[in-house]
Amino acid sequence: MALYSVILFPGKGDGQTVTMASASADSSVFLDRAARARALMAEQRIDVLLLSVGHDLPYLTGYLAMPLERLTMLVLPLDGEATLVVPRLEAPRVVERPEVFTLRPWGETEDPVAIVAGLAGAGTRSPGTVAVGDQTWARFVVDLLPLLPTTKFRRAVEVVGPLRVLKDEAEVAALTAAAQAADRVAAELQGGAIPLVGRTEAQVSADLSARLLAEGHDKVNFAIVAAGENAASPHHHPGTRMIEKDEIVLCDFGGTMAGYCSDITRCVHLGPPPAEIAEAYAVLHEAQQAGVAAGTVGVPCEEVDRAARRVIADAGYGDYFVHRTGHGIGMEEHEDPYIVEGNTAALADGHAYSVEPGIYVPERWGMRLEDIVVARADGPRPLNHADHALVVLDV
Amino acid sequence: MALYSVILFPGKGDGQTVTMASASADSSVFLDRAARARALMAEQRIDVLLLSVGHDLPYLTGYLAMPLERLTMLVLPLDGEATLVVPRLEAPRVVERPEVFTLRPWGETEDPVAIVAGLAGAGTRSPGTVAVGDQTWARFVVDLLPLLPTTKFRRAVEVVGPLRVLKDEAEVAALTAAAQAADRVAAELQGGAIPLVGRTEAQVSADLSARLLAEGHDKVNFAIVAAGENAASPHHHPGTRMIEKDEIVLCDFGGTMAGYCSDITRCVHLGPPPAEIAEAYAVLHEAQQAGVAAGTVGVPCEEVDRAARRVIADAGYGDYFVHRTGHGIGMEEHEDPYIVEGNTAALADGHAYSVEPGIYVPERWGMRLEDIVVARADGPRPLNHADHALVVLDV
Repeated sequence: MALYSVILFPGKGDGQTVTMASASADSSVFLDRAARARALMAEQRIDVLLLSVGHDLPYLTGYLAMPLERLTMLVLPLDGEATLVVPRLEAPRVVERPEVFTLRPWGETEDPVAIVAGLAGAGTRSPGTVAVGDQTWARFVVDLLPLLPTTKFRRAVEVVGPLRVLKDEAEVAALTAAAQAADRVAAELQGGAIPLVGRTEAQVSADLSARLLAEGHDKVNFAIVAAGENAASPHHHPGTRMIEKDEIVLCDFGGTMAGYCSDITRCVHLGPPPAEIAEAYAVLHEAQQAGVAAGTVGVPCEEVDRAARRVIADAGYGDYFVHRTGHGIGMEEHEDPYIVEGNTAALADGHAYSVEPGIYVPERWGMRLEDIVVARADGPRPLNHADHALVVLDV
Repeated sequence: MALYSVILFPGKGDGQTVTMASASADSSVFLDRAARARALMAEQRIDVLLLSVGHDLPYLTGYLAMPLERLTMLVLPLDGEATLVVPRLEAPRVVERPEVFTLRPWGETEDPVAIVAGLAGAGTRSPGTVAVGDQTWARFVVDLLPLLPTTKFRRAVEVVGPLRVLKDEAEVAALTAAAQAADRVAAELQGGAIPLVGRTEAQVSADLSARLLAEGHDKVNFAIVAAGENAASPHHHPGTRMIEKDEIVLCDFGGTMAGYCSDITRCVHLGPPPAEIAEAYAVLHEAQQAGVAAGTVGVPCEEVDRAARRVIADAGYGDYFVHRTGHGIGMEEHEDPYIVEGNTAALADGHAYSVEPGIYVPERWGMRLEDIVVARADGPRPLNHADHALVVLDV
């Protein structure tokens, strides 16, 4: 369950050209993606894509924009050249790919929104339909509205989403490598290599983070550590609470490695668990396996949610499973496809997502078990293999 | 020069209720701010404020939204109660303030944008004018457009900006405390407590970050370390380059402490500097002092930029000072007022901003000197007092 972005080492993977497993120095990957994006734009009658903060931009250009009040924006028209509008100060850090985009640096006294509007309208008109990247700052959209008065605005995810959701072989390999690195950290946790009792959640979180980096991640996105009753809060943030014996410790951590994300949850129990917890964990484990097994190509995403939820509900814990079963993963920790009731989209070969049911008894304890899975033609392929049991650590 | 956000310890200051110097447990600060916001809304004919990701929301409620695909949004109508729409999973972490806002948690299968549209229009109509927070994700604005078809969209910064830019005494105290903590780290750097020669920029960056936390910061926002020719890139990200003797090392770092930001730049030289660097630094020092001294209440912001730039230009280095002189600072590292040519707004009592001229000779060396300054009725008050000289370290 990825909640927020934590960058442990300034200067890594942030605003720099992204090191992507699928993006070698040559530009053919980006040219191919742009061609497929344009085909979808034509189908969906979108005249221009506008991409700023977020991962659609690096997916199409290799460049990740910093979340700044100075606008970075790719203007990709259905017909005509793509232009990357960047603050002049950032321009030196862009790896130029003239066959993919023209660079248009703007100076401190220029108006970048007017530049974008001019490029989007080719200087002559308000384009019919413009699609904007999801995480673009609203200020730029609000400033564009009066400059493109007759334009209809849509979400660029309609175009880039269907491309990004289908991971190619290089992307699956990158997700696999990231999952294996996360597995190694989980194995260290389960092997007792990380001291727990008598330390704070925050200290253990910092340990997990350091180990993710040591195992090859470029940055840590989150490292949730929740002990005892804190584990009942799915979005708990590790704090000053001291971890004690005879309690469960939920650890949910992940980061980015070569441009692609990891995300894993494992729980350990400090000393033998009481029957109540052992029994609930057996249900959780079965639910998680059922969710993984349900991930057959062609099945609606919501069916994976239902498969996991059914096991938990049948055992009487239904009210304690308070969130969706999973989320897609790739360049972002949370992306399509979402594994949630109501998502009737069919799983396809190359979809990558988490399966992470949980049971949370308020103010007492909680547990979650999470793997990343890739849907393949020959069945679901789990990427995480760290021990799925509630590992008991001697204390 | 704050470039990007680095959170060193997961769970601190992120998505949690912000610990704000100006926001004690009682809600009077927020009620007062909301009243002043509504007065400006009335003046500017804005019917509803919509605040999501970013710092306008915690300024008015004490709650900082996580940047998630699950929408968090405050709906603050000119007339009527404010409502905080939050994902149900996040609701337990909101400090409820019923006198300030009503909490409206939404479940996984609800449409939060429709909820916001309903609240904004009071269920009956498309409001005349809605103002949206600058960093709100575009996806939510794009989804709102068809639901509020006759509404005019504007930027919420028009309302919240004029409030936030005037720091009250508690906010100035918080900025001062953060600056003092940053000064202590700068003094450690200048005193030789941080080994430099033979280490990488990234290692020194990690050291500076750890020391900011040790000095009381809740998170580190950036820690630029740029050696030799790397210092010529104002936005350099510290990497694997080894620091060597006989070169300049530029360190620009800051973080957030009790909700308010620090930001300081100092340079050291490893061994005696060559005459060229010593002479340029004397110019830089004079320019920075001139910029600080120019910050009199009533003077246009651009005049502070001009005062610093004039010294550098007169000495013949004009082409090497490639960025604005500064930016406002408060709950965010970059906010109004911007100290840049073209900003004719007058400095007012309570404005807080950086004064950070630089000289950058491409591929050779660079230097910058930065303090935070508060404009006060009796003249500019610099908050940073760490040695302003180019400190020479024995190596």
